[in-house]
Amino acid sequence: MSADTRKAQAEVSELIEDWAKTLRAKHVESAMAHYAPDILTFDLAPPLQYVGANAIRRSLADWFPTFVGPLGYEIRGLNIAASGDVAFSTSLNRITGARTSGEETDVWVRMTLGCKKINGTWMIAHEHASVPFHMDGSYKAAIELKP
Amino acid sequence: MSADTRKAQAEVSELIEDWAKTLRAKHVESAMAHYAPDILTFDLAPPLQYVGANAIRRSLADWFPTFVGPLGYEIRGLNIAASGDVAFSTSLNRITGARTSGEETDVWVRMTLGCKKINGTWMIAHEHASVPFHMDGSYKAAIELKP
Repeated sequence: MSADTRKAQAEVSELIEDWAKTLRAKHVESAMAHYAPDILTFDLAPPLQYVGANAIRRSLADWFPTFVGPLGYEIRGLNIAASGDVAFSTSLNRITGARTSGEETDVWVRMTLGCKKINGTWMIAHEHASVPFHMDGSYKAAIELKP
Repeated sequence: MSADTRKAQAEVSELIEDWAKTLRAKHVESAMAHYAPDILTFDLAPPLQYVGANAIRRSLADWFPTFVGPLGYEIRGLNIAASGDVAFSTSLNRITGARTSGEETDVWVRMTLGCKKINGTWMIAHEHASVPFHMDGSYKAAIELKP
């Protein structure tokens, strides 16, 4: 692996760790600083996709207040492929916390991030979060899986 | 956009179109030629993830025969970011066909591919396929969504 590749990986890793901190802090505008303006999101909830940073802003502004107190956001097995100004990362992320609904959330999701270096700064240009679903006819999201 | 970037995008596009053909042909070994040996898969069905080409081989060998006749595989809105020897792509893919179960499948899935140029050849090193799920308490996979 070249020194350039190692450097890019370290930078993308820092971007992702930094971004995770903003989720734990439930701070919308701090999170927004990590997204490219034209980010394409494949989120846990419908629709199939949304385009642009404003859609994420609305989604986070809706999501954060559903946690009564702390939002736990663990990133496990982060793997980053980076070259030049493009990178993608994979990980299993655990979201935990008490919800205003009274529910206790504890779910592992698969996360793929597509990153681009824009004007010298790595940004998240694509986010794909999901759980698989059961093929037993129930079509239920497999929110109970643990790595 | 540099000529190198354009060339890389064209090569990755060709990889993906080529790979889709092998799915439509339901040909396991032709599909396998497009995957990196250590590919990480986040699939529609559980588990959360599987690692390595052999896991995909088994999955495809199980999946293809569930289609009675043709397997339809449309790729819409393919977008590729590529730089050096790393790329990622996003698209909405439509899977159609009559199943041995009697069911008629027609589902749109979000697809993110992570690609790497390995020994001069672009390969699929990561595949993330999913549908979102309903947050109405049913946790049902939203297999009915259309783009």
